[in-house]
Amino acid sequence: MIKANDPKLKSWLPIDPSSDFPIQNLPFGIFKREGKLPRAGVAIGDCVIDLAEAALAGYMKELNVNLQIFENDYLNPVMGMGKEKCRMLRQIVSDMMNADNPELRDRPDLQKKIIHKCADVQLQMPVRIGDYTDFYSSIDHATNVGTMFRDPANALLPNWKHLPVGYHGRSSSICISGHSFYRPKGQIKAADAPLPSFGPTKALDFELELGFIIGRPSIMGDSITTEAADDYIFGMALFNDWSARDIQTWEYVPLGPFLAKNFASTLSPWIVTLDALEPFRTEGYKQDPPVLPYLQYTGNKNLDIPLEVSILGKDSKEETIVSRSNYKYMYWTMEQQLAHHTVNGCNINIGDLMASGTISGPEPSSFGSMLELTWRGTKPLKLKDGAERKFIEDGDTVIIRGHAERNGVRIGFGECKATVLPAK
Amino acid sequence: MIKANDPKLKSWLPIDPSSDFPIQNLPFGIFKREGKLPRAGVAIGDCVIDLAEAALAGYMKELNVNLQIFENDYLNPVMGMGKEKCRMLRQIVSDMMNADNPELRDRPDLQKKIIHKCADVQLQMPVRIGDYTDFYSSIDHATNVGTMFRDPANALLPNWKHLPVGYHGRSSSICISGHSFYRPKGQIKAADAPLPSFGPTKALDFELELGFIIGRPSIMGDSITTEAADDYIFGMALFNDWSARDIQTWEYVPLGPFLAKNFASTLSPWIVTLDALEPFRTEGYKQDPPVLPYLQYTGNKNLDIPLEVSILGKDSKEETIVSRSNYKYMYWTMEQQLAHHTVNGCNINIGDLMASGTISGPEPSSFGSMLELTWRGTKPLKLKDGAERKFIEDGDTVIIRGHAERNGVRIGFGECKATVLPAK
Repeated sequence: MIKANDPKLKSWLPIDPSSDFPIQNLPFGIFKREGKLPRAGVAIGDCVIDLAEAALAGYMKELNVNLQIFENDYLNPVMGMGKEKCRMLRQIVSDMMNADNPELRDRPDLQKKIIHKCADVQLQMPVRIGDYTDFYSSIDHATNVGTMFRDPANALLPNWKHLPVGYHGRSSSICISGHSFYRPKGQIKAADAPLPSFGPTKALDFELELGFIIGRPSIMGDSITTEAADDYIFGMALFNDWSARDIQTWEYVPLGPFLAKNFASTLSPWIVTLDALEPFRTEGYKQDPPVLPYLQYTGNKNLDIPLEVSILGKDSKEETIVSRSNYKYMYWTMEQQLAHHTVNGCNINIGDLMASGTISGPEPSSFGSMLELTWRGTKPLKLKDGAERKFIEDGDTVIIRGHAERNGVRIGFGECKATVLPAK
Repeated sequence: MIKANDPKLKSWLPIDPSSDFPIQNLPFGIFKREGKLPRAGVAIGDCVIDLAEAALAGYMKELNVNLQIFENDYLNPVMGMGKEKCRMLRQIVSDMMNADNPELRDRPDLQKKIIHKCADVQLQMPVRIGDYTDFYSSIDHATNVGTMFRDPANALLPNWKHLPVGYHGRSSSICISGHSFYRPKGQIKAADAPLPSFGPTKALDFELELGFIIGRPSIMGDSITTEAADDYIFGMALFNDWSARDIQTWEYVPLGPFLAKNFASTLSPWIVTLDALEPFRTEGYKQDPPVLPYLQYTGNKNLDIPLEVSILGKDSKEETIVSRSNYKYMYWTMEQQLAHHTVNGCNINIGDLMASGTISGPEPSSFGSMLELTWRGTKPLKLKDGAERKFIEDGDTVIIRGHAERNGVRIGFGECKATVLPAK
C-alpha cells in the first residue's frame, strides 16, 4: 500500500467526515490569494496547503528541485518533477498534516503562513493544457447514441469494440469550475427543413466525464504500452464536455464534432493523483471480441468511482440529482486509451488532458447526458421545483461531483460546475 | 498600397531574382545560431535579419515595446504587439534593407551583427501553437474524396456548401520543415477482412495545405465577423497534414480522423504576413447556394498562390513535381473559416494554427494528395527515375513549395519538407 493512502492516517487539522479531501487524498491545484501571484497548493478538508510557503519553511528540501516550481500559474513544472518526486511531495504533505507529527501541528504561527481556508483563495486552472483529447469509451453511452441516431440493431459501429474511439478537442475554451458561458449559436438544420438556419442551440447538453492529466512527456515515434501507461498519468479530474446536440447533428459528418463542443468545457480544480485512487482499482469491463495485443493489459485497471450530476434550475434554490453513474462502466481503460493514442508515434506532453467521453451506466438513471436521460427530449426530466427539462436552459447550473469510498476513506474530486448565460 | 509592398523597392543586399524572399516579402521566423538562444528573425534573400541585434542597434525604438520579445523561443510575443506594431516592424526592416537608405547599407560592421546567412542558422518552429484546426475547404478535394469513398452522384455531403467543415487536430506533433518521422503503425481493416489487423500504414499520404496563424486573441463568447477576420490573422505558412489513409478509413466514423493524422504534420519555417500577400488577393469562389449572413463577405478575399508538391524518391537524386495546385481553388476563405470557428463563442489565442485542408484544383494534375493523384492507388504516379508510387514510401521526401508573383515581385514561402523513416 502507498503509505499516504493508509486508512488509519488522521490529520491534526479538523476535517469533516463528508469532505472529499481527507489526508489520504491530497489533490493538487493552483490557487491565488488577493494581491498575490498564483501558486501550487494541495487541498485538505476545507483548506489549501500553500506549497510555496511550505517550501520556504524548508519542507521541500529532500525533493532537491528548484522551489520556484511552486510559484507558477500551472502545475506543469510540479508534474514535470516526475512520478517519483511527485509521490515524495504527496508524502511530505501527508507527513506535515499527520496528527502524530508535532512539527506543524504545534506551530500555529507557521500554520498561518502555510494553510489557507479555501474560502479565502481563488482556484485557477490547475494545468496548462497543451492538447486535449476526448474519448468515447462508455459502451452504454455509445450504444444509446447509436440507438437514437442510427440503428438500434447495430448501435455500435464496427470499429467500436476494436479500438477506443477518440477525437481531438479544443483546449482554449476549457475553463475552471465555477465559470459561466454564453449559450452557443450556430447552424442548425431540422430533419424536415430544406436549409439550415442560424440561432442559439435548442439542445444544450452536459456530458459527465472524468479526464486524466499527462505528467510525463513522450517522444514522437515512441509508443506507450498499457503496462507503462500509469507512469505517464499524473491524476484525474471531473470534466464536463458541454455539447450542442442540434449543431452537432448538422456539422459532424464526416470529420467529427467541432463547433458543437468547442464553445466551452469545464474542469474541476483539483487533480486527484492516480496514487490516491489506487485503492479503488477494480476489474475492467470484459472485452469481447478480444482486443489486439497492443491493447491488452493485466491487472485491475478500471476504477470504482461513483459520479453524479445535479442541475440547479435557473429559478430554483435546490439542486436535483439527474444522474448517478460510475467510472467503472467504462469499456476502455485509461491505460488502453493512452496506448492507443501513442501507438502511431503521436507524442504527448505534460499537461495534456484526455477525457473519458460521456460516462453512462446500464440503467437509465445512470445516463451521463440529457440526450440520453430524456431520450432526445422525448422524456423530459422533472426538477425538484416541478419544472421540466429536455435540455439545459439559460440560467441553469450543472454540477458534477464524484467520490470513491472504501474502508471509511472518501477520495473525492470536489465540484465541476458551470452556469449557462443567455446567448449573446 | 502598403508601403513595404512597393514593387519598385530594391534592397542593398544582393538577392537572387528566384528567391522567395525579396524585400517585398519579409516573413517572420525563429532561428538559432550555434551556442546562442533562439530569437526572432526576418528572411531576405538567402539571409536572416536578427531582430534582437537590430533592436540592440536601436532600430526598434519607435515600436516602444520590451525588446526581449525578440529573444524568445517563439514569435508569439512579437505577434502579441498587435497588427499595427507588426506592420511598423515590417516597415522598419524594409527601411533598413532599402537600397536608398545608407544607414545599414554603409555599415559592414553592423551588418555582420544583424545579418546572418541562412546556411549558418538553424530554423525552428516559428510559433508556439496552442490549438490547431484543420478545415476541409477545397471543393475539388471534398468532391474527389466523396466520389471515391461514398457516392459519385452525391459526392459532397449536405452540409458542405453551407459551412466550412473543420475539425480539431493535434498540436504536439507539428514539426518544422526538414524533420523526419517514423511511418505510423495502427489498426487497419481491409474491406473484405473480418477483423482489423495491426501494422505499419500501407497508404501514407501527404496533404498540400496552407495554414494561417492567429496574431490576436478573442474572448470566449465573442464572435469574429468576416470583415474583422483579417485583423486576427498574422500570416500564412505551408503545411503538410500527413495522413495514413488505411488507418483513417477504419477509425474515422463517427468522430473524425485521429491516429490517421496526429503522428506528424509539417510546417514551413517562415510566416508570410497577410500584408505581404495583399497584392495577390483575388475573387472568391462563387458560392451557390448563398451562405448564411454570418458567412457572407465583401471584397476579394481569395488569394492567388500557386503551389506545388515534389517527391524526392528514396533512391533518387532528382525531385519529381507530382502536383501543381493553387490556393485560389478554395471554396471557403480564411475569413469565412475564422467567422465560422468563432460564431459559437469559441475563443482563439495568439499562435493558433488554422489550416486549409487539402488544396486540390479541378484538373487531375492539381490534386493535393496521393489519394487523389493516384485515385486510391489505382493509377500509380511515375517518378523521374522510373519508379512508381501509389502512396509515399519509406525514405521518400515530400516537399511543398509555393509563391505568388505579380509585377515582377515574387512572394514565396520557402519549403515545407519532411522525410519518412521506416516504421519503428
